[in-house]
Amino acid sequence: MDVEQETTLLGIDVGGTKVAICLARADGTILARLRRPTEPSGDPVADVARMAADARGLAAEAGVALGSLAAVGVSLPGPLDPEGMRVVNPPNLPGWGDVAVQPLLVDALDGLPVHMENDANAGALAEWHFGAGRDFRHLIYLTMSTGVGGGIILDGRAWRGKNWSAGEIGHVPLVWEGEPCACGLRGCAEAYIGGASWARRLARLAPPDGRVAELAGGRENATPKELVQAAQEGDAFALAEIERFNTYLAQLLSQLAFTLDPEVIVLGTIAVAAGEKLVLAPVRELVRTHVWPRIGDGLEIRAAALGEDQPFYAGVCAALSGLSAGEDPGSA
Amino acid sequence: MDVEQETTLLGIDVGGTKVAICLARADGTILARLRRPTEPSGDPVADVARMAADARGLAAEAGVALGSLAAVGVSLPGPLDPEGMRVVNPPNLPGWGDVAVQPLLVDALDGLPVHMENDANAGALAEWHFGAGRDFRHLIYLTMSTGVGGGIILDGRAWRGKNWSAGEIGHVPLVWEGEPCACGLRGCAEAYIGGASWARRLARLAPPDGRVAELAGGRENATPKELVQAAQEGDAFALAEIERFNTYLAQLLSQLAFTLDPEVIVLGTIAVAAGEKLVLAPVRELVRTHVWPRIGDGLEIRAAALGEDQPFYAGVCAALSGLSAGEDPGSA
Repeated sequence: MDVEQETTLLGIDVGGTKVAICLARADGTILARLRRPTEPSGDPVADVARMAADARGLAAEAGVALGSLAAVGVSLPGPLDPEGMRVVNPPNLPGWGDVAVQPLLVDALDGLPVHMENDANAGALAEWHFGAGRDFRHLIYLTMSTGVGGGIILDGRAWRGKNWSAGEIGHVPLVWEGEPCACGLRGCAEAYIGGASWARRLARLAPPDGRVAELAGGRENATPKELVQAAQEGDAFALAEIERFNTYLAQLLSQLAFTLDPEVIVLGTIAVAAGEKLVLAPVRELVRTHVWPRIGDGLEIRAAALGEDQPFYAGVCAALSGLSAGEDPGSA
Repeated sequence: MDVEQETTLLGIDVGGTKVAICLARADGTILARLRRPTEPSGDPVADVARMAADARGLAAEAGVALGSLAAVGVSLPGPLDPEGMRVVNPPNLPGWGDVAVQPLLVDALDGLPVHMENDANAGALAEWHFGAGRDFRHLIYLTMSTGVGGGIILDGRAWRGKNWSAGEIGHVPLVWEGEPCACGLRGCAEAYIGGASWARRLARLAPPDGRVAELAGGRENATPKELVQAAQEGDAFALAEIERFNTYLAQLLSQLAFTLDPEVIVLGTIAVAAGEKLVLAPVRELVRTHVWPRIGDGLEIRAAALGEDQPFYAGVCAALSGLSAGEDPGSA
C-alpha cells in the first residue's frame, strides 16, 4: 500500500553504542528525537522496556498520542530470525542472546504494529527514501564501518532472503581461504575492507614512526580515520593502503554489479569520510573497467548522504517498509 | 496475474546450435514440438521469419489456431536490450548484430504478444516452474556449459536488473586481474569454470599420454566431457581438475549465498554430467563450511532436472513470465 505522507511513525535505532528514537512523518519530517547511550544492562527485557519508556516520553513531550501512530520501526544490528520477530545473538549487543524484541515492544507500546529490520537493510531503506538513493528503484547499500553490512533494494523493496540474511555482503569470500574474519570464516570482504580488520592491519604494518602512528598516538591505536587523514596529507604508506582498500572494494562492487545489475550503489562511513578523491572516484574507475559497459556505464556509485541523522531515518524506514508491505505483525 | 493452466502458449528457444519450438499448456504439457539446427543465414530478419513459419506449421499440424494462443515466449542467448525487445550482438548467433526480434515476431505472428528472456533467465524460470526448483520461491540457476550464465528468481519473479543484465554470474571477478575471459575481462568465474576455458586449459595441461587425451583423441580436443569420464574412472589428473573446478564453483556459490540468501541453487550441464559424487556432494560440503549456518544449513544445491527438454520449457516459461507480469508488449 502507499503510505500517506501525513502518517506519523515511531522509529527506534538500536546501535552498539547509541539508541536513536524519533517521531516522524512518512515524508521524513522529524517531529521529535532523542539519542542516548545504548548501555545494555545485561537484561534485554529491561533494555527493551527502557526504549519503550523513552518512546512514550518522547511522544508525550511532542504532544503526539501513542494511539495515533501508524507503526513502529526498529532497526537493529542483525541477525534477525526469518520472521523478523527476534534478534539472534547480535554481536554488538552483549548479553542480548536470542530476544523476541518485536512482541516485547508490541506489548510495551499498547499493541502498536512493530516492524523490525536489520540495520543494514534499514540503512539501505533510509538512503533510498531520504538520502543518496532517492529517485532510484534498485539500490545496494554498504555500511562501511567497523564491519561491512549490506542492504539490497530491488524494485523498491528490501530483499531479505530466505533467512533474513540476504545482503550479508561483508562476508562473501572475496579471497578463498584468505585472511581470517571476525565471523570465524576466512577471506570475507570484511577481512579486507572492514574498519576493525583494517585497524588490526595498521597495528601490524603502519610504520611506527610514520604519520598514521603519529596521528593515532601509536600504530596500535590507528583506525581508518587516521589513515584517511594521513592519506589526505599525501603520506605514501596511507595512500598505498587506500589503494589496496579501493581494489578490494571495487572487486566486491563489480561482483555485485554483475549479479544484480543495480542502478546505484551507496557507500557508507569510510567511503564518506575518505570522500571523492581518495575513494569514490578511483573505485568508480576500477569498477567501470572491470564490468561490461552495458552494466557499468550507467551505474551510480555514491557516498551515503544522511550522515549522523541516518539512525533516525533507519528506524522510520523500518516502520515504512512494514507498512508498505501491508504486514501487520503487531496484530498477530 | 495468475495464468490458467489450460492456457496455450508458443515457446521458441534460439540456441547457438539448435532452435526448439513447441506448443504447450501453462501446466507444462507439451502439445507439439520441433527441433532443428539454428543455421543462421546471415540475415536475422530471414532467420526470425523462418522461426515464425516453423511455429505456424507446428500449430497447423497440431490443429491449434494461432489466434487461440495466449502468448509467445522467446528464449535467446543474451544480451537483450533493457526493454526486452531486441538482442544486442549475441555472441552465439553470428551475423545477428542488433535485432528487434520482438516486433519482428509480433508482425509475423498476427500480433500475438511476444515476450523475450535471455536464455539463462528462461532456463531459471523453466527449472523453477517445471524442474529442480519447483516448490521454491527464491532460486538461482547457473547454466554451466561452454560459458556460465545465471538466472535469478526472487519471490517468484525473474530479477532482470536495470539493463536486463542481472544474473551475469559467469563474469563476476572471482580473481582480481586473473585469467583472461572470452568476454575480454580477466578473472571472471567463467574463465575458471566455463567449459570453453576448461577445454583451453586441458589442451595445455592434460598429460599428452594420459586418459583424458586418450578419450578425446588428443588433449587438444579434450572437453569437460572426457575429463568427467576420466575422473569417473579414477584418473588422478582428472580428479585434481575436478577438485579445482569444485573449489571455484563453491566460492562463487558462497558469494551468491551471502548476497541473496536463496532457497535453492540449481546447476546445469557440467554439474549434471559430473553428477552427485564428483561435483554436487563436494560442492555442497565446501559451501556449507564457507557460509554461515543460518544461510547454508537449509540451502539446497541441486542438479538441473529438465535435461534435453529444457529448451522447450525455456521458451514456454518466457511466455509465462511475460503473462504473469501482466505485460503485453505485443499490443504496444
